[in-house]
Amino acid sequence: MTLTNVKALVFDVFGTVVDWRSSVTRECQAFGARKGIERDWTAFAVEWRKAYRPAMNRVISGELPWTNIDALHRMALVELLARHDIHGLSEAEIDDLNRAWHRLDPWPDSVAGLTRFKSRFIIATMSNGNVALMVNMAKRACLPWDAVLGAEVARAYKPERLAYETTARLLGLANEEVMLVAAHNRDLAAARGFGFCTGFVTRPTEHGPGQTTDLKADQDWDVVATDFRDMATQLGC
Amino acid sequence: MTLTNVKALVFDVFGTVVDWRSSVTRECQAFGARKGIERDWTAFAVEWRKAYRPAMNRVISGELPWTNIDALHRMALVELLARHDIHGLSEAEIDDLNRAWHRLDPWPDSVAGLTRFKSRFIIATMSNGNVALMVNMAKRACLPWDAVLGAEVARAYKPERLAYETTARLLGLANEEVMLVAAHNRDLAAARGFGFCTGFVTRPTEHGPGQTTDLKADQDWDVVATDFRDMATQLGC
Repeated sequence: MTLTNVKALVFDVFGTVVDWRSSVTRECQAFGARKGIERDWTAFAVEWRKAYRPAMNRVISGELPWTNIDALHRMALVELLARHDIHGLSEAEIDDLNRAWHRLDPWPDSVAGLTRFKSRFIIATMSNGNVALMVNMAKRACLPWDAVLGAEVARAYKPERLAYETTARLLGLANEEVMLVAAHNRDLAAARGFGFCTGFVTRPTEHGPGQTTDLKADQDWDVVATDFRDMATQLGC
Repeated sequence: MTLTNVKALVFDVFGTVVDWRSSVTRECQAFGARKGIERDWTAFAVEWRKAYRPAMNRVISGELPWTNIDALHRMALVELLARHDIHGLSEAEIDDLNRAWHRLDPWPDSVAGLTRFKSRFIIATMSNGNVALMVNMAKRACLPWDAVLGAEVARAYKPERLAYETTARLLGLANEEVMLVAAHNRDLAAARGFGFCTGFVTRPTEHGPGQTTDLKADQDWDVVATDFRDMATQLGC
């Protein structure tokens, strides 16, 4: 795979660009403090995230019609609140807590790295997160995307082929002119299978201090980097 | 209509944000100079633009399947070249000339105005232009969009309702939380009909020195401005 033809970098976002675990924990803690509710909010955040893949799989399998991540997060949240014996919230309070996912903080190198990437490449989201979530996140966190694309625009979730190919097509590019950047070997394996270039970045605390997965590259990805600054340097940005 | 609930400004682009007429003329002149072909390139640019609405109408009517603007521009260009007795171009040369529409210059106030709007609102394209065209234009012209939305993402051309409503929905907003900014009274009339707020900006030379249309607001649009700086001031940005 040659990188000289790459014109766009598209990014997994949750875990790769932003630290969902610390941010959602912080948001839940703030919610608890406001409401006077004590729980293990880190565990709550992790459980919430764990509901994400099974919920998407219900869409992929056709059990649910097209449903975006805000709606899937909210369905999971309602169940999670009940399981943690938290009751009596208004719809507006649940909506606001659900938008914790719009308020995720970038990793310390993300904004600087994206800014360098942007000088040389088109940079776009290719996230399973919906457009409103990505736009609100980007405005708060100063993520300088050229375009917000991905699952909702393609109406298909990664790792479905359509999610990847629609993103390249909308950018007017062939698959091999696009590099997926992700902290997850699985995402990259799918991308490579569809002819995309692949960039791996390690995010060794995405899942907390005891993380055991994605600590290193499983394959000879086209670029392997310790963070976005390192990747920008390797790409000559 | 109250503007206090407006959270996003979405923009018509051709004519409102960028000066297609001068830019396409300049691109065609440069093409002519490279190839040693003399024609009235201003007339050529205007004819090319005139082919745009009938071509889209063929999509809206169902005569053509979904076809994006790059492809519609190219179909029109091939006809136009033949009509102007220009032959023997390679496919790559036609593609490059077709991408003249990716290289449009902003009006002098556009970048400064958009930057001010962006400090207070989500700013997104709601153009009939396709995503790649809008992204390439934005990178070249430094248009700081938060999101590139519009016809191709909605798979519907303005003034179809779906083009407007999909844009609001993807931003997670109600129609009345979105203001369309356009230099065309007709675009705004459709937007108002669908419950959007409306912002009119005069672009008195979009169609050249003898322009007779859209020199003033036809209705009491929510904001009426002489340019984007004026509109930003009126919106408190």
